[in-house]
Amino acid sequence: MEPALHPDCEPLAFLLGTWSGEGRGHYPTIKPFAYGEEVRFWHVGKPFLAYSQRTWALDDSRPLHTEAGYWRPKPEGRIEIVLVHPTGITEIQEGTMDGGVIAVRSTQIGLASTAKDVTALSRVFRVESGTLTYDLEMAAVGLPLQHHLNATLERTS
Amino acid sequence: MEPALHPDCEPLAFLLGTWSGEGRGHYPTIKPFAYGEEVRFWHVGKPFLAYSQRTWALDDSRPLHTEAGYWRPKPEGRIEIVLVHPTGITEIQEGTMDGGVIAVRSTQIGLASTAKDVTALSRVFRVESGTLTYDLEMAAVGLPLQHHLNATLERTS
Repeated sequence: MEPALHPDCEPLAFLLGTWSGEGRGHYPTIKPFAYGEEVRFWHVGKPFLAYSQRTWALDDSRPLHTEAGYWRPKPEGRIEIVLVHPTGITEIQEGTMDGGVIAVRSTQIGLASTAKDVTALSRVFRVESGTLTYDLEMAAVGLPLQHHLNATLERTS
Repeated sequence: MEPALHPDCEPLAFLLGTWSGEGRGHYPTIKPFAYGEEVRFWHVGKPFLAYSQRTWALDDSRPLHTEAGYWRPKPEGRIEIVLVHPTGITEIQEGTMDGGVIAVRSTQIGLASTAKDVTALSRVFRVESGTLTYDLEMAAVGLPLQHHLNATLERTS
């Protein structure tokens, strides 16, 4: 039986389900690229949402990025998001949730010995008229925080 | 179509699949407890294994802990494991893989503002005669690194 949504998660209930669409990325050190993406949010009745994401190349569907983590709604419109990447990176993100807009910025980045040198990430998610969009800014390889990714996703289940 | 396992992941191929069983936990600040557990390892053809885990209470199956992350095999028997917990904690773990024994210790712990104060975690995983066991040591709430969890899991798929 599906557990009831924890009351703390009510402000994030509009995220639950599966979203898919396409995104675009750019950074001074790489060639601009486009990708397909699927994002899933689910819950187990506790005061967090589980999150996973994967992207793929639009030409041959080969897997590109993936990440996983948990969204922790807090009182007074605050939120903590904790994430892990297979590239050897972890993120502690903190910020605000305000209606359909969630905006967070890294307070700590964890790096495995062989991970790329990422020093900060900020993320803004928006759900408007049933469409989820996000923008991600990244500071990496000695460069300041700047726009890296944007995607537009529609709910698929 | 299932992609071929990345050659870097060959030393971890014995982990792939789903494992389940039971574990026990203790710590000076809490009552000893037992739990059911399922662990999954899978791959997408890239040089890491994806990992997820969930535990439940043995009496009423209510969800207890869960975590997710990625295992990154490296040359010369080294391994990096990156993990995220819904309790607002991230782990960068580094150590060794030697046959059926993987032993890692945290090099960085990330903590969200409202997370419990965990300062170090060490993990040892062993697969012997088709059984996966692990021990986890934790330093938390001002106490030194000490034994916290042990579980014994059998492959279920």
